[in-house]
Amino acid sequence: MIVIDWGTSSFRAFRIATDGAVLDRRSAPRGIMHVEGGRFAETLREHIDDWLTAGESRVLLSGMIGSRQGWKEAPYVPCPAGAAELGAALVDVPFDGAQGNVQVKLVPGMNGTDASGVAEVMRGEETQIIGALAMIGSNGLACLPGTHSKWVRVEDGRIARFTSHMTGEAFSALRDHTILGRMMKDGAPNDAAFNAGVTRSAEPGGLLHHLFGVRTQTLFGKLAETDGASYLSGLLIGHELRAELTGAQGEVHLIGAPELVALYARALAACGAKTISHDADASVRGLIIIGEHARWQ
Amino acid sequence: MIVIDWGTSSFRAFRIATDGAVLDRRSAPRGIMHVEGGRFAETLREHIDDWLTAGESRVLLSGMIGSRQGWKEAPYVPCPAGAAELGAALVDVPFDGAQGNVQVKLVPGMNGTDASGVAEVMRGEETQIIGALAMIGSNGLACLPGTHSKWVRVEDGRIARFTSHMTGEAFSALRDHTILGRMMKDGAPNDAAFNAGVTRSAEPGGLLHHLFGVRTQTLFGKLAETDGASYLSGLLIGHELRAELTGAQGEVHLIGAPELVALYARALAACGAKTISHDADASVRGLIIIGEHARWQ
Repeated sequence: MIVIDWGTSSFRAFRIATDGAVLDRRSAPRGIMHVEGGRFAETLREHIDDWLTAGESRVLLSGMIGSRQGWKEAPYVPCPAGAAELGAALVDVPFDGAQGNVQVKLVPGMNGTDASGVAEVMRGEETQIIGALAMIGSNGLACLPGTHSKWVRVEDGRIARFTSHMTGEAFSALRDHTILGRMMKDGAPNDAAFNAGVTRSAEPGGLLHHLFGVRTQTLFGKLAETDGASYLSGLLIGHELRAELTGAQGEVHLIGAPELVALYARALAACGAKTISHDADASVRGLIIIGEHARWQ
Repeated sequence: MIVIDWGTSSFRAFRIATDGAVLDRRSAPRGIMHVEGGRFAETLREHIDDWLTAGESRVLLSGMIGSRQGWKEAPYVPCPAGAAELGAALVDVPFDGAQGNVQVKLVPGMNGTDASGVAEVMRGEETQIIGALAMIGSNGLACLPGTHSKWVRVEDGRIARFTSHMTGEAFSALRDHTILGRMMKDGAPNDAAFNAGVTRSAEPGGLLHHLFGVRTQTLFGKLAETDGASYLSGLLIGHELRAELTGAQGEVHLIGAPELVALYARALAACGAKTISHDADASVRGLIIIGEHARWQ
């Protein structure tokens, strides 16, 4: 089987043996934003043609490739759902392989609602969660930090519900397009400034007030211009964490890019939460597990 | 006396009679951002030379003209302070008038700390508050909405403390530089969408989570693309208000541009707070009052 994590900015393909071992892997900066004119089939062929020629006939894709902006829209599967429900909801994509016998399937995203009934969506993260279930167990809480961070509750081995935070994207917009960024200078990430931002997030006044404080603290020399970005990052991540932590959530499983996972682990520790960090290859394991539930011909 | 509200983007000058009546007024898009090469004296002369020729010799300026980016930096006066303290701390600016006898003075900004000891600053709003004191009374709470909204506590007729929120600037950055804006289409302001945003701000999950909900609600057709900006505005303003309202604050005095004051009045009413709206000319009255406390030669 070939499994592919095909997101907005990157394309990561893995050739998997029947025992689940990764035989080969390759990646390219060919996320869906970087594929011109809907040439997804051509892009796929270009990167895995030799594997198909060598006899592979099953290709499973997850991520934004299954979105409206991707190859074909795979409808969201509602919460609660696990590997079985996702495997039963795969969407076939027409594809002419070298031998004419290649099946290409898309893993659907998931949707749900938050505590107030407002819609939630994710696409790609469900596959990472399935891949991390062996570590999370039947019941637990996982956080996948990023542009749109996800907090996922696992119950009875399935994804029960989840919430999103626009933390990463808000950070970029505030740093690059407000007075805060104009007061910042490039500098190495500063742990103390990051921690100060996390601490600040617990104080009264709300996020919009705390944002103004980034400016005044720089103005009065309490925060170095080179540390402003670290402080802002800690402030925003702190607000995200405090909205999610209940005090009784047990350990938080962190899944994602190592640098970001390390940052969240530090912030969570500062908030008194225990964490377990996972690597980003959870999506590969998730694809393999979901692929085992698929109805291949 | 001539009083001038000279801010970042606009210049508004008023000729005042000894009884406080406004004899004449003029304005120009010549805020400090639009004055090239520090030519503040020339800009001033250009706009009020005829008043000086007619015999005026006292000019009082407030706003960002007294900032580091303005004509001359007027050091902040610490809280608590009222008209007397501000009048005693005016900063002289050298200026050659037509007759050589013109005195130009700057109203200083104010600084303080929030409940957690983090620095606060304002420049221009202190003058508006002084101008509105006759309405606010000796004790009260005022809100000056804007790019950086101010909430000012008046005690014993002086500005006791204040807090800022980066609401207006965060709105622009999020609308213009995130996925939220890419999902929005231009439309007339929609009261129902604004109110829905204010309501949403009371729900659990925090602002960063609520921001993601703007996207999902548009995605699932619960929010029209033309109403996204109104909803986002209500959401951010709602978060600002809920951070400031204690339930026991009495009425909130709103001071500023009429459209923005009307928007905040509606949001505050939805949060159960009583409001009194003031016009934007509070700064003129404030300048006149502070001018009476000045040490003119």
